[in-house]
Amino acid sequence: MARTKRAGRRSGNPDTRAEILAAARRLFAEEGFESVSMRRIASEAEVDPSLIHHYFGSKDDLFLAAIELPLDPAPEVAAVLKAGGVEGAGERLMHAFVSIWDGPHQDKLLAVVRTSLSKPAMSFVLRQLFEHRIVKTVESVLGGEVDRIPVRASFIASQVFGLVVARYILKLEPVASLSADQLAETIGPTIDRYLTMPVDQFET
Amino acid sequence: MARTKRAGRRSGNPDTRAEILAAARRLFAEEGFESVSMRRIASEAEVDPSLIHHYFGSKDDLFLAAIELPLDPAPEVAAVLKAGGVEGAGERLMHAFVSIWDGPHQDKLLAVVRTSLSKPAMSFVLRQLFEHRIVKTVESVLGGEVDRIPVRASFIASQVFGLVVARYILKLEPVASLSADQLAETIGPTIDRYLTMPVDQFET
Repeated sequence: MARTKRAGRRSGNPDTRAEILAAARRLFAEEGFESVSMRRIASEAEVDPSLIHHYFGSKDDLFLAAIELPLDPAPEVAAVLKAGGVEGAGERLMHAFVSIWDGPHQDKLLAVVRTSLSKPAMSFVLRQLFEHRIVKTVESVLGGEVDRIPVRASFIASQVFGLVVARYILKLEPVASLSADQLAETIGPTIDRYLTMPVDQFET
Repeated sequence: MARTKRAGRRSGNPDTRAEILAAARRLFAEEGFESVSMRRIASEAEVDPSLIHHYFGSKDDLFLAAIELPLDPAPEVAAVLKAGGVEGAGERLMHAFVSIWDGPHQDKLLAVVRTSLSKPAMSFVLRQLFEHRIVKTVESVLGGEVDRIPVRASFIASQVFGLVVARYILKLEPVASLSADQLAETIGPTIDRYLTMPVDQFET
């Protein structure tokens, strides 16, 4: 794509979308999702803010597009948690998580994870996805039942990301070949413990 | 380094060491640690097998050099397990693991992990380290007390690799800032459960 006419980019040619995504990635990485406004991203990309809404809709949607995630995990997590509360949540979450990863989006999900783990500058992808989409969703559903969810969520993440590494990246057996039911049954109680154990001793 | 004289490489110039390492990495990745002999690596590198022993010692040492690991985890794991058997092994293992990762080798350890997670062809590094060094070591120490250690070890790996991701790569708080004591106390029981739970239902 030739980039000789700067004015051309502003008015909506295919470069514009790429410029917005590049600016969003850069600013999310440097300053974090929360502190970067849509107006700021528009300014960085040298486009009118209305174009961002035109191409991507909300700021959440822009973030998911910027990190090239094939699906938003937040509604999935909310649905699973609402379907039964804290009781047995670990097993239900693990079952849903493995089922999604075993499905048609696996290659794209793996690409996002590999990108985020391979270079320090790209770690913001999974970190912000976790902090902005997952922790907030869990708080909105379980906030009345469970205290200090960000603390618990960081332990849960240490198990869930490890399952991704063991099953989908390193392919360690038998974890790589077990069914969603078997993994939910085995790893679910670990999640449940992190959701219910005392965490008062941890300052944050 | 000029590589005009092929005979020169065979007799021990600095290229020889690099050639051996490259051949070892290639063969370990393609065929696995167990099935590749020192003689085979020597043949692939076009050097005399005695040169491999001269530069690297044993096949274990060659593997560790090939993956550029700054320390061999096997003696550490063996020492921790021998110091108290299965009882409380999870907490002792986690404490030792975090202490080593928090020490002077962190950058090199991170480099090995990032390399192994970033490209499919490099996953053999952590997989073989795990299968060849860790699982065998645990079996040699706990084999009389604990059944089906490879099954249990793959679950333990799913927690331990996840801790590396959460604490050292994504830096999720508070897991990123907690002490070795706190992580051992919190995650140790997860390891203990994977070491003691029934696993008869899992075929391998």
